[in-house]
Amino acid sequence: MVLPELCNTGYIYNSHEELSAMAEPVPDGPTTEEWIKAAKKFNAYIFAGITERDGVRMYNTMAVVGPEGFVGKYRKTHLWNEEKLFFEPGNLGFPVFELPFGKVGCRICYDGCFPHVTSIYAAQGVDIICDCTNWVVAGEVQTCEKPTCAYTAQALSVLYGVFTVCADRFGTERDCTFIGASCIIAPSGDFLAGPASHNEPGVLVAEINVTDAHNSRYWTPYNNMFTDRRTDLYDAYFGYDPKTGKRVE
Amino acid sequence: MVLPELCNTGYIYNSHEELSAMAEPVPDGPTTEEWIKAAKKFNAYIFAGITERDGVRMYNTMAVVGPEGFVGKYRKTHLWNEEKLFFEPGNLGFPVFELPFGKVGCRICYDGCFPHVTSIYAAQGVDIICDCTNWVVAGEVQTCEKPTCAYTAQALSVLYGVFTVCADRFGTERDCTFIGASCIIAPSGDFLAGPASHNEPGVLVAEINVTDAHNSRYWTPYNNMFTDRRTDLYDAYFGYDPKTGKRVE
Repeated sequence: MVLPELCNTGYIYNSHEELSAMAEPVPDGPTTEEWIKAAKKFNAYIFAGITERDGVRMYNTMAVVGPEGFVGKYRKTHLWNEEKLFFEPGNLGFPVFELPFGKVGCRICYDGCFPHVTSIYAAQGVDIICDCTNWVVAGEVQTCEKPTCAYTAQALSVLYGVFTVCADRFGTERDCTFIGASCIIAPSGDFLAGPASHNEPGVLVAEINVTDAHNSRYWTPYNNMFTDRRTDLYDAYFGYDPKTGKRVE
Repeated sequence: MVLPELCNTGYIYNSHEELSAMAEPVPDGPTTEEWIKAAKKFNAYIFAGITERDGVRMYNTMAVVGPEGFVGKYRKTHLWNEEKLFFEPGNLGFPVFELPFGKVGCRICYDGCFPHVTSIYAAQGVDIICDCTNWVVAGEVQTCEKPTCAYTAQALSVLYGVFTVCADRFGTERDCTFIGASCIIAPSGDFLAGPASHNEPGVLVAEINVTDAHNSRYWTPYNNMFTDRRTDLYDAYFGYDPKTGKRVE
């Protein structure tokens, strides 16, 4: 079960005080505890966005819980817009959770704009990416009618051979509009469920065969999406300064 | 003007002898010379796929020519399927051509399946990616009705803030079917022209403002798609062995 980003609080904060009052430790806060109860009750794994407090620092976090209790957490590494005023950037790297049904990697919303993230998960053998998200309307790039993030998630599913489960919210909160379009995507790029509506709640369900993720990585008898990478060439380019176009030595 | 991959020969070779008889040096072969004549006549730049011979080695190459003559070339770095039996992998890296209308990076077909390539070009300030391609039908991943490569090119245009011009072929050659779907894509992800038909020839034209590429890189007042990259975290993961999932030290 995948729930949206920051789903225990809402997304827009007017002040640090407002945020602080709603944030809670993970796993020792009441929301995570309730999710653990639900996971036990339904014998399910839950991936859910939560406003995390860790001492004086706040994180945009995904809690992972299962029938056995707390499994782990991921902290959003790429912060969007005014999130930078409220949250610390994630400091837990890109953890992979080996669960009974497959290997799972975590993205939160804007993380999906950086293909390196999905690349890193795929190289670790991840079968499924769970994306707790709050996709916003963003000028001409994304609207309710043009859910660009759902399409880019499709592309990443194809290019890295993973299932992707994106749980978004919809509606408007303090002048910020969310696009819905939650979806479950196969490694072929096909939507197995969704994109969901942008103006009513919904639940998407899909049954998947995780070995499809592994099989999809062999494009042809001569091609494997990992071993075909030309890291010998890529490495020569990393370290360019985007402002000057010059190599940082 | 962007033309398809290997557009002077066709894509499917039955033997090295057949390939060798059609390959030619770049820029000193007859095809490149004709393209230079055309570029001078129309005061245009031409990016065109060509079967290149360099001594005993063959490359799947893109020739770049303009009113001033030969500008440069790019050799496909990621070889698809039986191309590996005929061509050497590209050894010229990822060159950027600074032309009067903007900075141009080159992709050939399967290169577009590796987001690192577009990442490298974008970090060098490229405005436009020219993609000479021969997109093939590939199982359930890509068909004439589902031009996945055009959609993944859209995603890369958005995620890296570049225009993308994809020139594909269509029809069937020796049991290999090509999907058409040539297109010109804005940094917003919108198709400015195409996707073109998969069963008839066509010419796509679009007028663009290259500064849109630069402007698109600032998602919000707090976000820039380059400086937001968490290379501090990514670097810890490069070097994973895709077979074992273990770090290669």
